[in-house]
Amino acid sequence: MIGTVLVANRGEIAVRVVRTCQELGIRSVVAHSSADRESAAAKLADDAIQIGPGPAKESYLNIPAVIEAARAKGADAIHPGYGFLSENPDFAEVCEAEGITFIGPPAGVMERLGDKSTARAMMAEAGLPLLPGSREPLAGVAEAAALADEIGYPVIIKAVAGGGGRGMAVVRSAGEFAEAWARTRASAQAVFGDGRLYVERYLDSARHVEIQVLADTHGGVVHLGARDCSLQRRHQKLVEESPAPRLSPDVVAAMGEAAVQGARAAGYVGAGTFEFLVDTDGRFYFMEVNCRLQVEHPVTELVTGLDLVAEQIRVAAGEPLGYTAVEQRGVAIECRINAEDPARDFAPAAGRLAECELPAGPFTRVDTHAYRGYRIPPLYDSLLAKLIVWAPDRDAAIARMRRALAEVRLSGPGIATTTEFLAEVLDHERFRNATHDTRFIETVLPARRATA
Amino acid sequence: MIGTVLVANRGEIAVRVVRTCQELGIRSVVAHSSADRESAAAKLADDAIQIGPGPAKESYLNIPAVIEAARAKGADAIHPGYGFLSENPDFAEVCEAEGITFIGPPAGVMERLGDKSTARAMMAEAGLPLLPGSREPLAGVAEAAALADEIGYPVIIKAVAGGGGRGMAVVRSAGEFAEAWARTRASAQAVFGDGRLYVERYLDSARHVEIQVLADTHGGVVHLGARDCSLQRRHQKLVEESPAPRLSPDVVAAMGEAAVQGARAAGYVGAGTFEFLVDTDGRFYFMEVNCRLQVEHPVTELVTGLDLVAEQIRVAAGEPLGYTAVEQRGVAIECRINAEDPARDFAPAAGRLAECELPAGPFTRVDTHAYRGYRIPPLYDSLLAKLIVWAPDRDAAIARMRRALAEVRLSGPGIATTTEFLAEVLDHERFRNATHDTRFIETVLPARRATA
Repeated sequence: MIGTVLVANRGEIAVRVVRTCQELGIRSVVAHSSADRESAAAKLADDAIQIGPGPAKESYLNIPAVIEAARAKGADAIHPGYGFLSENPDFAEVCEAEGITFIGPPAGVMERLGDKSTARAMMAEAGLPLLPGSREPLAGVAEAAALADEIGYPVIIKAVAGGGGRGMAVVRSAGEFAEAWARTRASAQAVFGDGRLYVERYLDSARHVEIQVLADTHGGVVHLGARDCSLQRRHQKLVEESPAPRLSPDVVAAMGEAAVQGARAAGYVGAGTFEFLVDTDGRFYFMEVNCRLQVEHPVTELVTGLDLVAEQIRVAAGEPLGYTAVEQRGVAIECRINAEDPARDFAPAAGRLAECELPAGPFTRVDTHAYRGYRIPPLYDSLLAKLIVWAPDRDAAIARMRRALAEVRLSGPGIATTTEFLAEVLDHERFRNATHDTRFIETVLPARRATA
Repeated sequence: MIGTVLVANRGEIAVRVVRTCQELGIRSVVAHSSADRESAAAKLADDAIQIGPGPAKESYLNIPAVIEAARAKGADAIHPGYGFLSENPDFAEVCEAEGITFIGPPAGVMERLGDKSTARAMMAEAGLPLLPGSREPLAGVAEAAALADEIGYPVIIKAVAGGGGRGMAVVRSAGEFAEAWARTRASAQAVFGDGRLYVERYLDSARHVEIQVLADTHGGVVHLGARDCSLQRRHQKLVEESPAPRLSPDVVAAMGEAAVQGARAAGYVGAGTFEFLVDTDGRFYFMEVNCRLQVEHPVTELVTGLDLVAEQIRVAAGEPLGYTAVEQRGVAIECRINAEDPARDFAPAAGRLAECELPAGPFTRVDTHAYRGYRIPPLYDSLLAKLIVWAPDRDAAIARMRRALAEVRLSGPGIATTTEFLAEVLDHERFRNATHDTRFIETVLPARRATA
């Protein structure tokens, strides 16, 4: 069994992990940077240890410092949260070598799934549908252009090392291909130090739907249904929900089965997410696997009743899952409240929270590290709070979320949040009737604002 | 349909009702006393109106003032919450006469069920099991003593007009009967102005288990399972949970069926609660019907997924329930955090809340009107916050509640709360293994303290 968990993260997810440790009777130690000395997680945990200065490279990404903190505090396991070291195979390997349980998949699994090209090949092998495309890095522009002709336009050129919406270009005709190829290669080389590219079909209208899986060390793999995360801004998710609306149970079942198959093929252990694109006809295509807890995991918790952090810890301790299917109930929606100013192109708007009132009430959950007087450090990402609601059906969940959003009071000098922007999104008929796609924010919302 | 609801109550339940109104798109107006001018409910609602000075008799219990407020604000319905006017048939009748929808059962139903003797007779007629006893007021001590001999000792003498733990006496042998009878009659006459008494069997160890029912105006009646509210201090509930632990599904089904039968017999409409005593062999005995929302209704909400206030409003608007059975999932527990000092025999300990930090996180709900800086008025009851958690099973729910209780920070000059006392109750093995009864706090806990 696990006696002490080092929480190697910050913000709301560190608070989230500490709470579950306390419920499981596990001692929790938060490893924090000097900028997070006064953080809610550090105060809530049983213990805390400073691992370096504010910049993440010198603290949250500093593997020796994290390992040293675990040793100093007698932690026998490390929860990496999301971001930072959570999908770093080297870190998982060092943990293994040090005899510390990494709460996440084995290093080798993360390594293989972290390389998009390898992951796609492995999943194609396991029978998962991929978007028509190369799946392998392409040697040069001639080979790539020939493939694009074969696939049919529009296509998308993507960097093998890409992610987070960078290193990609949509090409709508053969005449534009060569120039787009050269531009994307140069940018991929500059940003990722890796100029390798591949090509696949581009869907003009697609939903981002992902399947949560859990796998134990005894061969048990289950999926926990689908989350729709189509509401994105520059590939950053803003609103997520479960189940995926307007998706037939047959399609969800097929996606779930595909994810379980893929997890088995990869030898997956722990909590993971299989991301798919779904076209307007309900055809789904595997994109990638996220080898960690997702920001949006609470929507799955609220419909399944599971505590995913507790499940991660149980699996890491070697326990079998103990179930082969999980029942889902109702609808859960999450809104990410970021300290960003929508009026200034979502620029980070940090500062001191003079006012911090958050919603409560029936089926309303807030995961946050914010408190009155908290000074948001400008060093990290802008996620300030996650507002998650549950209701028996989607309309009731939207009404509940709108009520809850109206209760949010987060303000202070220099601070702006996405709260009102989220309310606007939720009020839009395209969201209400679930006909939005991944480009909704870029295409529909500005138009509506212009005509307002 | 209902357009505007006047919330004729205060504290957490007023906040609770306002939230549901907002989700339903109904305008909410909080009717408050002068002492509650700065209340969370008044601030959260769409509108607020002062109905009188601090003392409840001059505001929350002042029927003309409440009706006048409804008229002034154009409210077409009144939600009475619990306590105050919620079970007052006269108030319901005035509402009816004024053409205002009273969100609760019809006046006549409340009147019949509000008289314990009438209610017991009606429920016996409907086939509900009662504790062996008189059911009717007894003429004198000779008749009463003869009945006690017939029932068998121990018996309990109760005032017809009693309630809240007052006006009752347990008698363990025939020799003590006459003296106890005289004493109880005198006290009932003094406290309630009604010296009528009855006698029934006394259970030395019993659980308080109640069934939540919902009934519409179209003949639809459903029960929402059982709540165990055995953890009481002087007949005030402190901890409630659903489902009732250690009660066989057969017994719960029989109790649910009995409650539905009783509700039909009474012509019940709205949300109501059938209270039963359950002995150590699982035999259950009808006690009374509460014609209102209960303080502990959230535990039923968390296991059923229903919003009981929304259901009350739907029924009041004439909608049919639309379901004949409700599925339950997992376990919910509620702890009542009162502004009372356990070290001073639970004396009210009001004051200004300098610190007000409340728990959050997975499956954790707080219903409260408290906020930082709030001055708790000494005029009303001491309920400060309800902490409610849900988990797949009882052990996990207890662990979650213990974690959540540890996060509570409610303090200020003069303020004491029951938070630590509740933690002590939850840690007791009798609660953990659910072998506690209604006398647990009076009998077991002090003993444990003495030996600690």
